[in-house]
Amino acid sequence: MAISRDDILKSFYFRHACKEFDAGKKIAEADFSTILETGRLSPSSFGFEPWYFLVVQDVTLREKLREFTWGGQKQLPTASHVVVILARKKYFMKYDSKYIADLMRNVQKLPEAVINKKTEVYKNFQENDFKLLESERALFDWACKQTYIALGNMMTAAAALGIDSCPIEGFEYDKIEKLLAENFSIDTGKFGISCMVTFGFRIKEGRKKTRQPMENITQWY
Amino acid sequence: MAISRDDILKSFYFRHACKEFDAGKKIAEADFSTILETGRLSPSSFGFEPWYFLVVQDVTLREKLREFTWGGQKQLPTASHVVVILARKKYFMKYDSKYIADLMRNVQKLPEAVINKKTEVYKNFQENDFKLLESERALFDWACKQTYIALGNMMTAAAALGIDSCPIEGFEYDKIEKLLAENFSIDTGKFGISCMVTFGFRIKEGRKKTRQPMENITQWY
Repeated sequence: MAISRDDILKSFYFRHACKEFDAGKKIAEADFSTILETGRLSPSSFGFEPWYFLVVQDVTLREKLREFTWGGQKQLPTASHVVVILARKKYFMKYDSKYIADLMRNVQKLPEAVINKKTEVYKNFQENDFKLLESERALFDWACKQTYIALGNMMTAAAALGIDSCPIEGFEYDKIEKLLAENFSIDTGKFGISCMVTFGFRIKEGRKKTRQPMENITQWY
Repeated sequence: MAISRDDILKSFYFRHACKEFDAGKKIAEADFSTILETGRLSPSSFGFEPWYFLVVQDVTLREKLREFTWGGQKQLPTASHVVVILARKKYFMKYDSKYIADLMRNVQKLPEAVINKKTEVYKNFQENDFKLLESERALFDWACKQTYIALGNMMTAAAALGIDSCPIEGFEYDKIEKLLAENFSIDTGKFGISCMVTFGFRIKEGRKKTRQPMENITQWY
């Protein structure tokens, strides 16, 4: 199976925050399915999959998003595919929710004894280890962290397929959330926006990639 | 360049949270360098690279970590490589920090006019769009989100190379932070722990991967 080191690194050098796509080029359906699938197959804390993906192909809805998305002015109208990544809020993610119990029982298919033990560990994790219940924001931000794993994987998978992407945090949070409630039928008491990510094909070459050197960001022990 | 859809998906099915590694097997240096490099080359908000990687190969230090890491009891002693991922705190990440200014000037090599504009946009992003300055935790959690992109990419790169991994959030946060200060010479006023990730080779097959079906986690518009 193994993919070569060179091919992996080529994908990472290929990927850049593509600010404008060629509006005439569409991603093949099988490729976009693969990208979404790498999001779905991403790992998450306790395996609780706190993500939800809105694929926005409707031009009018993209324009509505664009109104409050200063960081996506060129990407939103030109992208082949636009994904708004939501994260699940307390209603789903708190240790005693129906969602968590159902997921352990029906998706993870764990035996009842394991479910009880895992719930107890998860409760302690939220209450004491990471203190996630100190505010709604702390719990939601933790769910968002997991969605960034899926975000990274989808962009990496796209790059491996020769497809460009741009992640977007540049938007007016409250206005986008209101828009999701009013125009996308999202229950924003239960879901919040994590970020957006756009996919397509670059219209011009990006800037040369810049990063701090490895020795500035690593320490060996 | 393109890697096939099948090879990409095979990597995603290969990856699982490997709870115990074969302690006798070491990752080749060139492979581990590639894994770390995919962390370094990961995207982050504004390109501000809020991560720092501690590679912990010292057995005594691993045992110290293990004392407060209930989720890494078998992984920490058996992994070929252990990485503690830190995220930068307010000292580095606030819009007016020296780190941000230096990074734009010396790493991103932006012209002064662009630096001034980007700083203004970043300030507004932190103050208004994402309200990151409402608490130290909000700003730190946002930095942590970016590190989860690197986390995801490193695990995906490992899987593509046929190398197993396990991400770890299962630890007593405050105790690990204290340990990093006392035994790893980390200035925990400036850096906090985001998560851990271990790499190596599985000693037995993992459970079959389980996930919610795609239609439960996506909506098209």
